[in-house]
Amino acid sequence: MKTLDINCDLGESFGHYIIGNDQAVFPHITSCNIACGFHGGDPLHMHRTIESAIKHRVQIGAHPGFPDRPGFGRRKMELPPEEIKATIKYQLAAISGMAKSLGADVTYMKPHGALYNMAVVSESISNTLIDAVLEVDPNMRIMGLAGSLFQELCESRNVRFISEGFADRSYLPDGSLQPRISEEAVVFDPGKAAEQVLEMVQRKRVRTIGGTTIPLEIQSICVHGDNPAVVDILKSIDEALANTGIVKRHF
Amino acid sequence: MKTLDINCDLGESFGHYIIGNDQAVFPHITSCNIACGFHGGDPLHMHRTIESAIKHRVQIGAHPGFPDRPGFGRRKMELPPEEIKATIKYQLAAISGMAKSLGADVTYMKPHGALYNMAVVSESISNTLIDAVLEVDPNMRIMGLAGSLFQELCESRNVRFISEGFADRSYLPDGSLQPRISEEAVVFDPGKAAEQVLEMVQRKRVRTIGGTTIPLEIQSICVHGDNPAVVDILKSIDEALANTGIVKRHF
Amino acid sequence: MKTLDINCDLGESFGHYIIGNDQAVFPHITSCNIACGFHGGDPLHMHRTIESAIKHRVQIGAHPGFPDRPGFGRRKMELPPEEIKATIKYQLAAISGMAKSLGADVTYMKPHGALYNMAVVSESISNTLIDAVLEVDPNMRIMGLAGSLFQELCESRNVRFISEGFADRSYLPDGSLQPRISEEAVVFDPGKAAEQVLEMVQRKRVRTIGGTTIPLEIQSICVHGDNPAVVDILKSIDEALANTGIVKRHF
Amino acid sequence: MKTLDINCDLGESFGHYIIGNDQAVFPHITSCNIACGFHGGDPLHMHRTIESAIKHRVQIGAHPGFPDRPGFGRRKMELPPEEIKATIKYQLAAISGMAKSLGADVTYMKPHGALYNMAVVSESISNTLIDAVLEVDPNMRIMGLAGSLFQELCESRNVRFISEGFADRSYLPDGSLQPRISEEAVVFDPGKAAEQVLEMVQRKRVRTIGGTTIPLEIQSICVHGDNPAVVDILKSIDEALANTGIVKRHF
Repeated sequence: MKTLDINCDLGESFGHYIIGNDQAVFPHITSCNIACGFHGGDPLHMHRTIESAIKHRVQIGAHPGFPDRPGFGRRKMELPPEEIKATIKYQLAAISGMAKSLGADVTYMKPHGALYNMAVVSESISNTLIDAVLEVDPNMRIMGLAGSLFQELCESRNVRFISEGFADRSYLPDGSLQPRISEEAVVFDPGKAAEQVLEMVQRKRVRTIGGTTIPLEIQSICVHGDNPAVVDILKSIDEALANTGIVKRHF
Repeated sequence: MKTLDINCDLGESFGHYIIGNDQAVFPHITSCNIACGFHGGDPLHMHRTIESAIKHRVQIGAHPGFPDRPGFGRRKMELPPEEIKATIKYQLAAISGMAKSLGADVTYMKPHGALYNMAVVSESISNTLIDAVLEVDPNMRIMGLAGSLFQELCESRNVRFISEGFADRSYLPDGSLQPRISEEAVVFDPGKAAEQVLEMVQRKRVRTIGGTTIPLEIQSICVHGDNPAVVDILKSIDEALANTGIVKRHF
Repeated sequence: MKTLDINCDLGESFGHYIIGNDQAVFPHITSCNIACGFHGGDPLHMHRTIESAIKHRVQIGAHPGFPDRPGFGRRKMELPPEEIKATIKYQLAAISGMAKSLGADVTYMKPHGALYNMAVVSESISNTLIDAVLEVDPNMRIMGLAGSLFQELCESRNVRFISEGFADRSYLPDGSLQPRISEEAVVFDPGKAAEQVLEMVQRKRVRTIGGTTIPLEIQSICVHGDNPAVVDILKSIDEALANTGIVKRHF
Repeated sequence: MKTLDINCDLGESFGHYIIGNDQAVFPHITSCNIACGFHGGDPLHMHRTIESAIKHRVQIGAHPGFPDRPGFGRRKMELPPEEIKATIKYQLAAISGMAKSLGADVTYMKPHGALYNMAVVSESISNTLIDAVLEVDPNMRIMGLAGSLFQELCESRNVRFISEGFADRSYLPDGSLQPRISEEAVVFDPGKAAEQVLEMVQRKRVRTIGGTTIPLEIQSICVHGDNPAVVDILKSIDEALANTGIVKRHF
């Protein structure tokens, strides 16, 4: 039987500032990447999001980001490796300890925003993130872009890597994501998103912006919580998976 | 043989903003209360401060505060108990996990600033802090004002309480501290501070602003890291203890 | 001909965190209270909101708040008057200069959140706010709760006060607002909100939580931009005013 | 009679976090660059610093920076030009209005940290800064690195540019500053700093790291307020100027 993990970034709200529709998303996903209070989230929203994840039996991942709330962690920052490592360790420790206090484990780390994109291409950033994970919890897995340098470095250092593909982002011919600055970057059409997922899961490939297809091997599918169509996309994926006998289950 | 713990708030610097002279203080103390990134401190300064504590064999305590960096956590904030608890749990988890990654334990929690003062008199705040500690690490002890309601509540809930006295703060006749707004609030004279310490340790009492003395039973002495005279005060205490055969040792 | 000003808090978004639906609100209001970057708003959102106000010929007011973004300025803070004054002057100067650079004037100041509520009852806070306005721009008017101590103090110091009533908040028998912690605090029903507006404008009175009515003289009606029903409430008010021949016009 | 302006970055403290020794610096300088609350400073420290500048008859400049307090505005940030412009306009308006309320004018703008360095080489950043100044106050001058692209662009757009040289920073052979990451970047020796100033003022040149000298025409000399030797450097410059008959006076 074929299984598929569906992950989503959640817990991004900050005080009175609400992002996303977490309660509508939880029933459809198997893993959640919870913001850790730097680019998004705060202690109270984290606490409640962990409680919701436990209630919905959704696997919990840490989703640390740059210390840049106004930019939501989506802007490149030039921090020394020592500062990046400490910043990530702090966030991993905070969410792990909070989850533990509620009886749950944080089983993986997925970097957020600019940090995610920098890890795809930078050996230094990738290794700094791996160091942070190994120092805080060597059992933690790492989730990142399928086929990236980051995947390669994790595997060469014996960290279990979960390769993910995106249901709602467009791919460039080199396997990277179309930058958000482009209008085509985000997929809003639920049918198109579900089709992209099936293509990845069944044929291990993805169609790119140019129309060509490239090989892509993934273990988890990401849908963005701040995509206004997120719930419809998740329902469309649910239906497509049900039709093809693939079972949603976390890794 | 009589022993005495000396504690100091450290790791309060934030980025380029440096507070205190931590490296000069470490050799003189046995416990340090490390800021956790909300009122003071940041991940990089925390990481380095934990490393210094380990190097100097100084016991590590968590020193969480209100989420109020501009006010340095010294202003009362009216937060719902659920938010205070989540905020404290986050900070305790962050520092504990970071310390653990470096091979050290966080053995106690001492609330900072307004939170410290509110715990002295508020049953609700005291119980929220105790809840946070018990949920994150039931082995953690709590440090606070000797003879306070906070001490009473900790003990009634079977949390080991470390009662502290202040070397460099003036006491009011009711055992509370002279508020910082007063010019007499902080003791800058090293000799006077050492004398106040000896009075507490040897005679279990303290002289108050009015001239009367009140009984006070303490297990640890606090000196403030942002007191400009901190190093001289610590040296003066060292000398006084040496003269009386009291040995500095953490609880 | 009778006229009525309708005001709304706008420009509260912060970076990636979006609050309210400003573009849908602008066509229905005559004055907007723009957040100044402390409790809500940021320079880019302020700049764009001022441009929108100019385009919609909506009068611009400054809406300064406490320096408390996580609490959205809705939590009481105990700041010394000197610090409150500097904080308000900074915000007034920032928005006034930015508006002037775009060819517009900031004609009034309305305090936000906890500051608004504290001004209603505190002579010290009221006078500090008045001082700030007089020092930055003596032509600026002040908007606040109708019938409050704040109104009295403004008028005794010859600052023109704009007394406002709320379309979407419940009143207590003493003329103050039902605190937000209560479920009845906010009115979501467009018809009920429009009825409350007509009662204020035509009969100079308002029905309170208990069922009694109290006298209330207002020059502007406030609808909250973060009320999910805001657009429907505004449309309902538009219709009610049209039916009674009252013309919307800013003071 | 030859005159020379001496400028210093002041007002960088933030709440309880104190930077520099502004009161000791004021008597020695003729212009001050006041932080505007983003990388450093806050409304209360700004207000007090403006009052001190007025008292010491020191000319007031705006010293805006990136919205990056943890990094003190010294880290490059990739913000869209529209966001940089709004961020700078906000800061310029805030300090100008606050100064005006106290009876003083802000006569020039000098960008801070990474923004300063980016303006030296980037046409886009330079033009964005110039746009911000022209929109807020077309009479404002701009201060920046002597001989830079920024100077060229200001002059081509008819903005009066004040070219500055540094008393306490080392120069590279191309006229740029030795990056702060290098140990030689900052000059701590008062005699050496005064000598570098005289070389600039009398011979219109500066000695570089490699030992060569390059031509440099400056109208103001900057000394850094966070240089621990700042007061001694300023005294040493005072003495050197007195010996050579050069009079300190702001531009």
